[in-house]
Amino acid sequence: MNPTDALARISIVLSRTSHPGNIGSAARAMKTMGLSRLVLVSPKSFPHPEAETLASGAGDLLAQARVVETLDEALADCTYSLAVSARARDLGPEPMLAREGALNLISEVQAGAEVALVFGNETAGLSNEEIQRCQGAVMIAANPAYSSLNLAAAVQVLAYELRVAAFEGAPVVESKSTPFASVPATHGEQEGFYGHLEQVMVETGFLDPAQPRRLMPKLRRLFGRARLEKDEVNILRGILTATQTRR
Amino acid sequence: MNPTDALARISIVLSRTSHPGNIGSAARAMKTMGLSRLVLVSPKSFPHPEAETLASGAGDLLAQARVVETLDEALADCTYSLAVSARARDLGPEPMLAREGALNLISEVQAGAEVALVFGNETAGLSNEEIQRCQGAVMIAANPAYSSLNLAAAVQVLAYELRVAAFEGAPVVESKSTPFASVPATHGEQEGFYGHLEQVMVETGFLDPAQPRRLMPKLRRLFGRARLEKDEVNILRGILTATQTRR
Repeated sequence: MNPTDALARISIVLSRTSHPGNIGSAARAMKTMGLSRLVLVSPKSFPHPEAETLASGAGDLLAQARVVETLDEALADCTYSLAVSARARDLGPEPMLAREGALNLISEVQAGAEVALVFGNETAGLSNEEIQRCQGAVMIAANPAYSSLNLAAAVQVLAYELRVAAFEGAPVVESKSTPFASVPATHGEQEGFYGHLEQVMVETGFLDPAQPRRLMPKLRRLFGRARLEKDEVNILRGILTATQTRR
Repeated sequence: MNPTDALARISIVLSRTSHPGNIGSAARAMKTMGLSRLVLVSPKSFPHPEAETLASGAGDLLAQARVVETLDEALADCTYSLAVSARARDLGPEPMLAREGALNLISEVQAGAEVALVFGNETAGLSNEEIQRCQGAVMIAANPAYSSLNLAAAVQVLAYELRVAAFEGAPVVESKSTPFASVPATHGEQEGFYGHLEQVMVETGFLDPAQPRRLMPKLRRLFGRARLEKDEVNILRGILTATQTRR
């Protein structure tokens, strides 16, 4: 795939954006770097004239933007998504730096994956729940005394790194050597597994919903690191079902 | 010189800026990357409330900004300045890319030079006369069909590259590990888990020892990829035990 096509396949997901102007500025930032797929999760005000104004020549991205209710909808078809985070979170995946994150996203796209980069609300960022729904996290190294990048500025930096990575030739994802490797599990398949796992833990009394002890975040971190494949999700759910039916 | 001091010595020169809001946004972009020296050449409106608003927490940079009449005044003490240009000019120096330009600026600062990065007017950019007053030119690689970065967005990208260049060779993020990451599981702990998992699969009838269907190799591949930690093995074995005792 040529670099231009690779960039055009990356989804930029903006979750719960408060200011429509920031959506417009983000669209402009995307288009300057050749990105075009914009997904908005529950934007506070969209469409909005201020978004159009600040998009400048990137109004086409706003017109084509997909607007959804939840992050799960936004990521349903993705196999690799990175959450943009200003800091490491207790419960989320360990963040990589912007350059490494961009190289990973381009490698995945070049290997045929559906990928997304997810930005949170201007004030609150992404919630822990949102971050845990992504396969990884990425952060922009910033001044520790003032790390508050404007939303569109963060989109600009990462879009820029994506463009550089796409054109400088990102390393191709190494082909999996084991004969039984399967395709990556989609977001929906992974969430189905997590839901099933939690159900079994509750049924067996291992997980007390009143005292969850961070068990699910820890397990999401473990399986997120492994980048679950479709066959593996099937096996894991098969084991879970077997423990349920034989009880 | 440490990276933080190097960044603090770089001047960002904004020439003939039309919109005071862009001056504020540029100051914010600078401060997020640890830059602090702002020089304004004949700004159309400054000081201005809109600059203050958009600077957000970077109002100190506006308060300390040096305002001058001409680019020559701005660059008087500099030995190395780079003009930011959206394209190659007939009469100017051959532009280098942002990453190379940032590395050159940091190298010069580390060698004791006074350096500057010069941005032009929002609409017209830098004039040929201005570009020729600089030692070199730098451009941000962009979408040829739409290369119109907002002024503050261009400042953000170059400030980001300066920060990365300044910290190259030194860790930019102090610690990447999440607070509840635990030590790696030993070989024995991992084998204990695999044995326990296999036992549960056999007990529940999911794994038929006579027809093992490569289940264990597939699961070993999955968990091996994740590089299991000690706490994670404990959680996983806890789940397995819970399914056994409640059956």
